[in-house]
Amino acid sequence: MAVSAAVAGASGYAGGEVLRLLLTHPEVRIGALTGNSNAGQRLGALQPHLYPLAERVLQPTAPEVLAGHDVVFLALPHGQSAAVAAELGDEVLVVDCGADFRLRDAGEWERFYGSPHAGTWPYGLPELPGGREALRGARRIAVPGCYPTAVSLGLFPAYAAGLAEPEAVIVAASGTSGAGKAAKPHLLGSEVMGSMSPYGVGGGHRHTPEMVQNLSAAAGEPVTVSFTPTLAPMPRGILATCSAKAKAGVTAQEVRAAYGKAFQGEPFARLLPEGQWPATGAVTGSNTALVQVALDESAGRIVAVCAIDNLAKGTAGGAVQSMNIALGLPEELGLSTTGVAP
Amino acid sequence: MAVSAAVAGASGYAGGEVLRLLLTHPEVRIGALTGNSNAGQRLGALQPHLYPLAERVLQPTAPEVLAGHDVVFLALPHGQSAAVAAELGDEVLVVDCGADFRLRDAGEWERFYGSPHAGTWPYGLPELPGGREALRGARRIAVPGCYPTAVSLGLFPAYAAGLAEPEAVIVAASGTSGAGKAAKPHLLGSEVMGSMSPYGVGGGHRHTPEMVQNLSAAAGEPVTVSFTPTLAPMPRGILATCSAKAKAGVTAQEVRAAYGKAFQGEPFARLLPEGQWPATGAVTGSNTALVQVALDESAGRIVAVCAIDNLAKGTAGGAVQSMNIALGLPEELGLSTTGVAP
Amino acid sequence: MAVSAAVAGASGYAGGEVLRLLLTHPEVRIGALTGNSNAGQRLGALQPHLYPLAERVLQPTAPEVLAGHDVVFLALPHGQSAAVAAELGDEVLVVDCGADFRLRDAGEWERFYGSPHAGTWPYGLPELPGGREALRGARRIAVPGCYPTAVSLGLFPAYAAGLAEPEAVIVAASGTSGAGKAAKPHLLGSEVMGSMSPYGVGGGHRHTPEMVQNLSAAAGEPVTVSFTPTLAPMPRGILATCSAKAKAGVTAQEVRAAYGKAFQGEPFARLLPEGQWPATGAVTGSNTALVQVALDESAGRIVAVCAIDNLAKGTAGGAVQSMNIALGLPEELGLSTTGVAP
Amino acid sequence: MAVSAAVAGASGYAGGEVLRLLLTHPEVRIGALTGNSNAGQRLGALQPHLYPLAERVLQPTAPEVLAGHDVVFLALPHGQSAAVAAELGDEVLVVDCGADFRLRDAGEWERFYGSPHAGTWPYGLPELPGGREALRGARRIAVPGCYPTAVSLGLFPAYAAGLAEPEAVIVAASGTSGAGKAAKPHLLGSEVMGSMSPYGVGGGHRHTPEMVQNLSAAAGEPVTVSFTPTLAPMPRGILATCSAKAKAGVTAQEVRAAYGKAFQGEPFARLLPEGQWPATGAVTGSNTALVQVALDESAGRIVAVCAIDNLAKGTAGGAVQSMNIALGLPEELGLSTTGVAP
Repeated sequence: MAVSAAVAGASGYAGGEVLRLLLTHPEVRIGALTGNSNAGQRLGALQPHLYPLAERVLQPTAPEVLAGHDVVFLALPHGQSAAVAAELGDEVLVVDCGADFRLRDAGEWERFYGSPHAGTWPYGLPELPGGREALRGARRIAVPGCYPTAVSLGLFPAYAAGLAEPEAVIVAASGTSGAGKAAKPHLLGSEVMGSMSPYGVGGGHRHTPEMVQNLSAAAGEPVTVSFTPTLAPMPRGILATCSAKAKAGVTAQEVRAAYGKAFQGEPFARLLPEGQWPATGAVTGSNTALVQVALDESAGRIVAVCAIDNLAKGTAGGAVQSMNIALGLPEELGLSTTGVAP
Repeated sequence: MAVSAAVAGASGYAGGEVLRLLLTHPEVRIGALTGNSNAGQRLGALQPHLYPLAERVLQPTAPEVLAGHDVVFLALPHGQSAAVAAELGDEVLVVDCGADFRLRDAGEWERFYGSPHAGTWPYGLPELPGGREALRGARRIAVPGCYPTAVSLGLFPAYAAGLAEPEAVIVAASGTSGAGKAAKPHLLGSEVMGSMSPYGVGGGHRHTPEMVQNLSAAAGEPVTVSFTPTLAPMPRGILATCSAKAKAGVTAQEVRAAYGKAFQGEPFARLLPEGQWPATGAVTGSNTALVQVALDESAGRIVAVCAIDNLAKGTAGGAVQSMNIALGLPEELGLSTTGVAP
Repeated sequence: MAVSAAVAGASGYAGGEVLRLLLTHPEVRIGALTGNSNAGQRLGALQPHLYPLAERVLQPTAPEVLAGHDVVFLALPHGQSAAVAAELGDEVLVVDCGADFRLRDAGEWERFYGSPHAGTWPYGLPELPGGREALRGARRIAVPGCYPTAVSLGLFPAYAAGLAEPEAVIVAASGTSGAGKAAKPHLLGSEVMGSMSPYGVGGGHRHTPEMVQNLSAAAGEPVTVSFTPTLAPMPRGILATCSAKAKAGVTAQEVRAAYGKAFQGEPFARLLPEGQWPATGAVTGSNTALVQVALDESAGRIVAVCAIDNLAKGTAGGAVQSMNIALGLPEELGLSTTGVAP
Repeated sequence: MAVSAAVAGASGYAGGEVLRLLLTHPEVRIGALTGNSNAGQRLGALQPHLYPLAERVLQPTAPEVLAGHDVVFLALPHGQSAAVAAELGDEVLVVDCGADFRLRDAGEWERFYGSPHAGTWPYGLPELPGGREALRGARRIAVPGCYPTAVSLGLFPAYAAGLAEPEAVIVAASGTSGAGKAAKPHLLGSEVMGSMSPYGVGGGHRHTPEMVQNLSAAAGEPVTVSFTPTLAPMPRGILATCSAKAKAGVTAQEVRAAYGKAFQGEPFARLLPEGQWPATGAVTGSNTALVQVALDESAGRIVAVCAIDNLAKGTAGGAVQSMNIALGLPEELGLSTTGVAP
């Protein structure tokens, strides 16, 4: 195997999922695993599902530990990636699962994150127009946020084809793993089971400007986004319901054709047959995005729904897919299109 | 106790919830319980949670069984209520938990239900403008649909105050009990746990014209509704995320004031304090609707979220509340504002 | 209303459930509510399901706050009850939901809790032989643990009737609320949904000596208990599967008769009809214990299963039921035998 | 790829899981897929998670459809396998996921299944003493039941080492997929979420004689089994809590050594490090069995807990593992030891 990979932040959900995928990657050898407060512990105690790595011990997230690998995955809290990446040579592929390098607009970054903008890296969503090309040969990759992955795949075809007005309304439900592994009372099983709740309502969620960026690029004009995330009683999965007013005269056939064309040949994004709607349960553990679209003629809106696994296609799968492209490997390596269901 | 009540359809989820509430109602004596295929069975075998009624035996849903009660609750499949009601005298209060008499527009009824319109009864959502008055002394009540209850409470204040453009976009998540107790493969626990999925996308859900009816009445002009329902992995609860473009110049303070005014004095609808968002888990078993609202200034939209228990406030609670008003009883009897949580 | 009640520890799950029940109690007026780190906060922010108490503000858990009530419920971490109770007069009824005063054997206490034994109070499980009598007029009550409640109700009839050998084997599944509201990583929704796991295996769970105490008292001889608790992906409920070798010659009829007799006339414990097995979902929010029993003739064992709501009959419901007995009130006040299902 | 495989019963949960695994098997080409009432449908409509097979169409389960494959997996209702297998040549490897050929004792078969005994095939649990050898070169394989897999792996080490008395007590929790995909009211999501319930209590579950068979073989003497299965609110997973009285003088060290030895070198069964207990969530989608054991010195019992994925190691994974052994392929092909978590 030619490629050595380190994972910084191996004890969290994103890092764990990167490892789960790399274990099946025929061209990758898993190198150093690092953690912060968990350094020194066996991975088996922290990620008991990663049985083949159970006896690995976490090291501190330090430059000398990460050095010497071909690829370094960063699954760190926001704001920490720039410093770590700066210590790694330009020839090392750094794949950042965090937010630091996703946005092009420094003002938007500062407005939503309240800190100076670290920069912009090639964006790891190859299904977007021009997305694949931007990743070839890259040595720095910003993995998209989980919500923007689902939302962009759900709506970019309508915008790229000029079918939708530039005001998108999105409500998305996410499994709790999207909120991470840090113990907070509102994320306790007792609180989330049997309950749905919104958060970040009214435009405050940090993934909003990333959606604006992607949809505006597809549309060729500024698109506003009303985004409401909700927490659903399930560990994994995002279901994004996305709609926009159809431009005058747009027909259902045009909408369907645009989506069919947008996903043609894509290994990991699929327009479902008419009459079948996506369920997040069908993509658990898989890198597939399932999309369906309808034209609501009474309301005059294009309504698209996209289901992904937030940790797979929404984070770690997108990261591995982008790595494959950057390194010139077959894009499907280490990734599954088969979900674990029921 | 002065009021005798029969429940037709006592083996289903709606009928069971009506009984659960009536068991706590100090003025109601529970009379005949009827079922269809389950006639002859002990209620304890069908609704084991209704312990005090365990030894009751279901009778067939027949006029002679239902006759002689002051109130008859109908929790029957759509299309069956008219025939049953026709056999009951005008002095009997008939509370229909089904859809048959909810819509005023016969054309819309026929378009969505594909059968002749049975008529229109007073509508059991007292929180709507004029809603309470329409129920006083009524002897026929159409209980609103579960989704229209949540959506109407979520958006009518914005429309009644003239703050929103007449194009509403709604995405709602419902617990599986909303789909009833008939065994269908896609409702199996194995299928729904860990999964979110949409249905009726693109304007086809039968609750849509009811939302149009309520919001248009509040707005005083026709309102279009884009409605996407989703099935969530929980037994109970609806979380409705509702938005509409704010009219030019509308401020957050105006929005908040409108909602505060709309719910002032309401026993079962509450605008949460700023910063707190509703969770369906907080209203399980309760008749309370929790509402919060925000103005998204970037997207120019009013975003309101309403959480209810689909079986309680969304069906049986609304039914009992409306019965109380119709009979001149205190509105809160038999109803709780306390949820069972966690 | 004659009785004023304070609740110490009102922000936790046990305290919240005590309040939920007291809100429906016709003879109780809810007085002071206290918390520790949450003192000063609105209850509405901490327990949003307790809508009627939303504007109440938590006070510190201090003697002067708790003084002057007829009843004080303690829902505090283990080890804190003795000091608080010492400051309350002998005429005040103190109902302790914690473990401090449950065990009679000081040695067992010290072995399992590692601290000096605080004493023994009348035990709040009225269904046990002599249990109700011990509570009449009491001014100190130790509420049983949730697991011992389910296990004792499941097996005492077999022991009291002399039908079972004195070696009990118990495996119980509990909802996550039994583990409390403190945020710990293994209790995150992401970790518990879709997963069952054991804990305290091999005799280490602190509820074990309480089971030994109750079953030995019923048997009139020392009973050993092998107890394995498991964490189930649900917020509430305990399902205890309890078995013991049948004494030679015992028949299924004798077993059934013993259970029927044990629960005869009990308002909150019920032997289900033959062929029907208890589900925790049927007792959510209810004070009912559902029990079923079988004689496995091949294995020679009596197998009993008991389902309760761990927070209701298993904690707060047991507390209120015991309070009613102690104060000479009707035992059912403030308690429901109707579950919230589905 | 050398091996062609057909799957009879491809629309159910067991058949779907066989396909999920075969899709990753480097030596297998998936041939005919058959169904009964679903013949003629696209697999994508029935098993949307099996994306690479979405366009495959189910054929009827008929000899001419299954003929010509190297391996035929049968995932059929009980009682149908014998007739299908009789039509397949002796050189075809038939792997039966059903119960028909698991039991050696015809009397026990008839007692539990009420039909004539079809025979006994080599038993697909290679971890049992002599289990692997019995499968080499086999052309008929009876895949163990899901519960017997978990229970046998949990207790055979204690019996094989002569440490336990021959009376086992087992309580196991299973995810709902174990009950299959046929729509039954008690398996609705509304019924199972938030609820645990037992079934087949008192010795009636059909997997009991299979446990007796395996544990008795390990012990070299007849072992009685008290088995209580419970239905847990999760789609997948079995957690089996198994105990037996320790023989006099047995020490914790002996117990641990026996389990360590029993699983030494096993690719798919693992004794966890001391202090760590198995969770079903860690083995979702994986072929791993996680086992832990303790000696409860107070109760004098060996308590072992085993977690598996009921559809993977408990059914389809066991089937593929056994196929690999029978065909002389590396045992790990097409099987993962990595779970999908959280």
